[in-house]
Amino acid sequence: MRADARKNRDHLLAVAGAVIAEQGVDASMRDIARRADVGLATLLRHYPTREALLEALLRTSFDELTAKAGELETSSSPADALVAWLRDCVAWTTEYRGVTVLMAAAIEDTESALHASCVTLRAAGARLLTRAQEAGGARTDVDGTDLFAFVAALAWLGDQPSLAPRADHLFGVVANALLTDARSAGSAGMPSRG
Amino acid sequence: MRADARKNRDHLLAVAGAVIAEQGVDASMRDIARRADVGLATLLRHYPTREALLEALLRTSFDELTAKAGELETSSSPADALVAWLRDCVAWTTEYRGVTVLMAAAIEDTESALHASCVTLRAAGARLLTRAQEAGGARTDVDGTDLFAFVAALAWLGDQPSLAPRADHLFGVVANALLTDARSAGSAGMPSRG
Repeated sequence: MRADARKNRDHLLAVAGAVIAEQGVDASMRDIARRADVGLATLLRHYPTREALLEALLRTSFDELTAKAGELETSSSPADALVAWLRDCVAWTTEYRGVTVLMAAAIEDTESALHASCVTLRAAGARLLTRAQEAGGARTDVDGTDLFAFVAALAWLGDQPSLAPRADHLFGVVANALLTDARSAGSAGMPSRG
Repeated sequence: MRADARKNRDHLLAVAGAVIAEQGVDASMRDIARRADVGLATLLRHYPTREALLEALLRTSFDELTAKAGELETSSSPADALVAWLRDCVAWTTEYRGVTVLMAAAIEDTESALHASCVTLRAAGARLLTRAQEAGGARTDVDGTDLFAFVAALAWLGDQPSLAPRADHLFGVVANALLTDARSAGSAGMPSRG
């Protein structure tokens, strides 16, 4: 790709990211083109559909989150690495309104343009989780899909104006649940204590 | 209200509940009237707007859930009562697709027709939570709003086809987090253990 073509593409993606952060993943291509100060035809030449644009936009973030997981695998204690990465995932997912529903669908839909990126992300989380489990620092009855679901649910909470102020606190409760219950493996599942 | 008027109203509410369970809270009034085998004008005479219909529909369920909380307060151990009630709330909320977003907005919006019911529900949960906390059976850094948020988030998970199969398991993880961490009050919030 020529340098100016890459620059144009990066500009379009940056603007698309900002517009989608404001309006959610349903933002119109026309709005995005207007904000990027290009014609709609130019935007469509780069990204023929909104889905193609979202794919490019999200894949970049996916790559960053996957790379971050790799770094954490070598630089932090297993439990801290897992929680730090989950926090990054929730923060990113919260940034794009509506993306949680999109991702929840794509993770099981092999036809989706986002499927491969979601699977890669889940696998990155699963590796951090397994590492924490092997170190005795995380409960053993959760897997990568559970992490994916918790990230999606916490991001959804952060997206509801009335509940958003509690989202960080609730992240702490869930993170605590994923980690501390390793001490009481036998009590995993439904508690029954009076 | 005359007996036949009450019967008509109950029939409309039962049909509306079924249609909304299928299509979500955005179901059209026209579809609901058709399924109830009445004219649209008849439906609108009972419920002038979709919001009025939803209010009547949800308020009935709210009343049932609130009454259930009252029963549990006297019949079960504090921790079991809390978990049983939360499970009922999640099951009910999952039944009506889209209602979580509606409730999350209504809980803080004093103008919403659903506000009072949401506040009553949150208070019922808070009473069960306080009872469990006083018995030493629940962590003390969560409140009624946190319960409300967890119910909403778990119901949202149950609404995503790809994640729904994990929803019950994840309910167990969250329930465990609300209860078991009472043993380690000092570690509430962000865990940091290698």
